[in-house]
Amino acid sequence: MGKKCVGVDVGGTTVKIGLFEESGELLRKWEIPTRSENHGAAILGDIAASIREELEKEGVELSDVRGVGIGVPGPVTADGHVPRCVNLGWGSCYPGQELSVMLDGIPVKCANDANAAALGEMWQGGGKGYKDIVMITLGTGVGGGVVIDEKIIAGKHGLGGEIGHIHVREGETERCNCGGMGCLEQTASATGIAREARKFMAGSARPSVLREFGDNVTAKDVLDAAKAGDRIALEVMDIVCHYLGVALAAIAQIADPEIFVIGGGVSKAGPYLTDMIQEHYEKSLTLSDYRPVIGLAKLGNDAGIYGSARLVLD
Amino acid sequence: MGKKCVGVDVGGTTVKIGLFEESGELLRKWEIPTRSENHGAAILGDIAASIREELEKEGVELSDVRGVGIGVPGPVTADGHVPRCVNLGWGSCYPGQELSVMLDGIPVKCANDANAAALGEMWQGGGKGYKDIVMITLGTGVGGGVVIDEKIIAGKHGLGGEIGHIHVREGETERCNCGGMGCLEQTASATGIAREARKFMAGSARPSVLREFGDNVTAKDVLDAAKAGDRIALEVMDIVCHYLGVALAAIAQIADPEIFVIGGGVSKAGPYLTDMIQEHYEKSLTLSDYRPVIGLAKLGNDAGIYGSARLVLD
Repeated sequence: MGKKCVGVDVGGTTVKIGLFEESGELLRKWEIPTRSENHGAAILGDIAASIREELEKEGVELSDVRGVGIGVPGPVTADGHVPRCVNLGWGSCYPGQELSVMLDGIPVKCANDANAAALGEMWQGGGKGYKDIVMITLGTGVGGGVVIDEKIIAGKHGLGGEIGHIHVREGETERCNCGGMGCLEQTASATGIAREARKFMAGSARPSVLREFGDNVTAKDVLDAAKAGDRIALEVMDIVCHYLGVALAAIAQIADPEIFVIGGGVSKAGPYLTDMIQEHYEKSLTLSDYRPVIGLAKLGNDAGIYGSARLVLD
Repeated sequence: MGKKCVGVDVGGTTVKIGLFEESGELLRKWEIPTRSENHGAAILGDIAASIREELEKEGVELSDVRGVGIGVPGPVTADGHVPRCVNLGWGSCYPGQELSVMLDGIPVKCANDANAAALGEMWQGGGKGYKDIVMITLGTGVGGGVVIDEKIIAGKHGLGGEIGHIHVREGETERCNCGGMGCLEQTASATGIAREARKFMAGSARPSVLREFGDNVTAKDVLDAAKAGDRIALEVMDIVCHYLGVALAAIAQIADPEIFVIGGGVSKAGPYLTDMIQEHYEKSLTLSDYRPVIGLAKLGNDAGIYGSARLVLD
């Protein structure tokens, strides 16, 4: 019997945990609540207790576990340092080291959750078979992860793969959550797509099926309307995909992966979305006819546990 | 006596070659002409013959050479493939393998010249002491190289570090050499800075010391005038450094190196230039207070031979 590994994906409200074979087979997954009160002091202890409990149910000894990977929602440097994790209430810490102590010293590695998700997609998802992938998650925000030669580029300051905050848009007048203006996230996240649709509707009297949604319009409404040929929705998606294309071209000309994998709620629009992105991406990358391809993520919300588990297999 | 290594930097008119100690000490450097006629068929043979000749003068046997690195002016993939090298007349080839055969089978590694220069600056130049650096060369064009964990990110299509062609400027109306519009190189190269100055002078009647240079104004003229307080020159450099800041911030949020090293002719303006870039860079990277620092290159035109030699020390 091969060894097992455990992947932990710590979110603001829920911690997802998965038990895997080293081969990548998911044996069991479960969730526990994230207790972020009291500066998140209980989180790692809860995770350790939960892992012990579930391993016992499975009849797996801790000594049969090669290691645990843990993805956290904030910057993590290449050596596993978390300078601060606002969502969990943590100050400067080394969660991997702390969790290892709680688990009889088995190896524990820590990464940013979006970076871990990218590694997960490389291992068993949309990037399977590739060693160099960049994942872009289009959700409430825009996240990303850069994996080169099967390793996460976490960066020296934990900024590796923070592609939602690449400045792409000149003339933006509103501020991004990060304090900047013109970040990719402001236009290409689900929130950003809806904002863009509201701006278009406010700025013109042209008819659109989107008007029935008013200020509650969502990114899904925009994508559905665009697929159905609504002109306003198509113009919104043209802007969104222009900036996504610019960002992907920039990433290609810095890290040049084999494939871009698009995930997150917005990516449910499927090849319709990636085809639109592809068109703008090619316009922004004219240096060479050889360039990374664009594909779709496959693991959904499980990408984080897959990637965290994969962290310990190096 | 330790082993030696040889670094070769193939330019469009001259091939620079250096003999190094493994410790990084440059023992001897020389040049031969680049014979690019006949699809550059003679180039590798000339290099092999020249290396043999100079080693003999130094009393070094080929068996005392750990390997040869060769930097070429075009895309090189991570496995040493050159899809095409317009400047040398080469089609698809593996220059490392070919040169190795000509040198009794000693290891030869091949990289893009700008990527090699970045590795050279990491080894013995402005990035010495760091393992993760990104070099930006502001010369006739804008070149770059990304080095993470002491290794070049060459990319799967040879696009790694092609930061001169990151799209940064909306509304650009002229085409870049690559076919795109709004590339960093169009604004921040020596050529781009001069072009910007000409546009400013044509678009206003305001006085400027730059007017005496007319259409022959150079990037050096602009930087000298800016240092002396000339308003037009300062506005030109403000635009140039804005787009450099945007590009550096994008790179920081993708690859997050420890340091940016600025080289090339334009970088002779020294800390005056890097301070101006720093100001705009911080405005474009508000996500974190921890970010890569900006420094200057130190090896000048020798960065390529240093980096090519360093290629064989892994």
